[in-house]
Amino acid sequence: MDITEQVRDSLRRGGVRDGLGVVYCPHTTAATTINEHAEPDVVHDMLLWLNRAVPQAEPGFRHGEGNSDSHIKASLIGSGTTVLVVDGDLVLGTWQGVFFCEFDGPRRRTVHVQWLGK
Amino acid sequence: MDITEQVRDSLRRGGVRDGLGVVYCPHTTAATTINEHAEPDVVHDMLLWLNRAVPQAEPGFRHGEGNSDSHIKASLIGSGTTVLVVDGDLVLGTWQGVFFCEFDGPRRRTVHVQWLGK
Amino acid sequence: MDITEQVRDSLRRGGVRDGLGVVYCPHTTAATTINEHAEPDVVHDMLLWLNRAVPQAEPGFRHGEGNSDSHIKASLIGSGTTVLVVDGDLVLGTWQGVFFCEFDGPRRRTVHVQWLGK
Repeated sequence: MDITEQVRDSLRRGGVRDGLGVVYCPHTTAATTINEHAEPDVVHDMLLWLNRAVPQAEPGFRHGEGNSDSHIKASLIGSGTTVLVVDGDLVLGTWQGVFFCEFDGPRRRTVHVQWLGK
Repeated sequence: MDITEQVRDSLRRGGVRDGLGVVYCPHTTAATTINEHAEPDVVHDMLLWLNRAVPQAEPGFRHGEGNSDSHIKASLIGSGTTVLVVDGDLVLGTWQGVFFCEFDGPRRRTVHVQWLGK
Repeated sequence: MDITEQVRDSLRRGGVRDGLGVVYCPHTTAATTINEHAEPDVVHDMLLWLNRAVPQAEPGFRHGEGNSDSHIKASLIGSGTTVLVVDGDLVLGTWQGVFFCEFDGPRRRTVHVQWLGK
């Protein structure tokens, strides 16, 4: 889920001109990342690969909730993503957007953004 | 290895009320991450998957020390993990804990935590 | 590509004595990481594994540019890497170096480094 505009809104309200922000997901079966947001096929292909590489059921998995794959994907992609801020705007490449990655949903989720700088 | 309490101790000593911390591992065959720490089966399943996905011996591996898998896992999970701090406490979800991930041990290891904010 | 010296140069010019830096890659098919830079075989083995684990063509991939694998590797390794700074120098382990990871090159690329602290 592309959350670039929500992150940019938070930046406008947070008032940092030069520094960085950490986009942080307080959930153990979800993550955040930065990747291409112009072309939805990239998201499709990334989820396809992740779901094949980390299958939901794997011989030897013990976790009773049956969502070990979601936890593994969360740590592979990572809970937090750092974005740079210069002259009051995000430093993102032409094709880059910030994503929230749901690996065990749909669920109601929260994302924190912390800004640091001046 | 769950190091959440050690990170919280460092926060109390470091004196940051609002900002962030970076939990950093200066080793090339270990990493840090945030994931579920209430249920040890999640750790078990994650290590099981990582050890299958990145086998110790792989045709074509050249590294003489025979621990290329540990280096690869280190970069997949990442050396550093950022934790947010609000009102003097870590911003962690209900099930989240901070982990040191040993991929080539047991060894004596060091973890640095740097706090930034006010 | 080992960019440790370029990051260190940036630190010298940026003037931070105590804090952190974020090495950030504004491209969706490249990444940054920290790993062993004394032994080139580690880089070789990591790329070998990544190229096998994330093949260029995978049944079901839709992205028309044919480089979904590069995007997936970018999110697995991550766009940004945080390095700590203490006493005016990078906190790196004996074998650690900072790497720019090209997954869809060769191309002309940019890396930003943002320093924060005092």
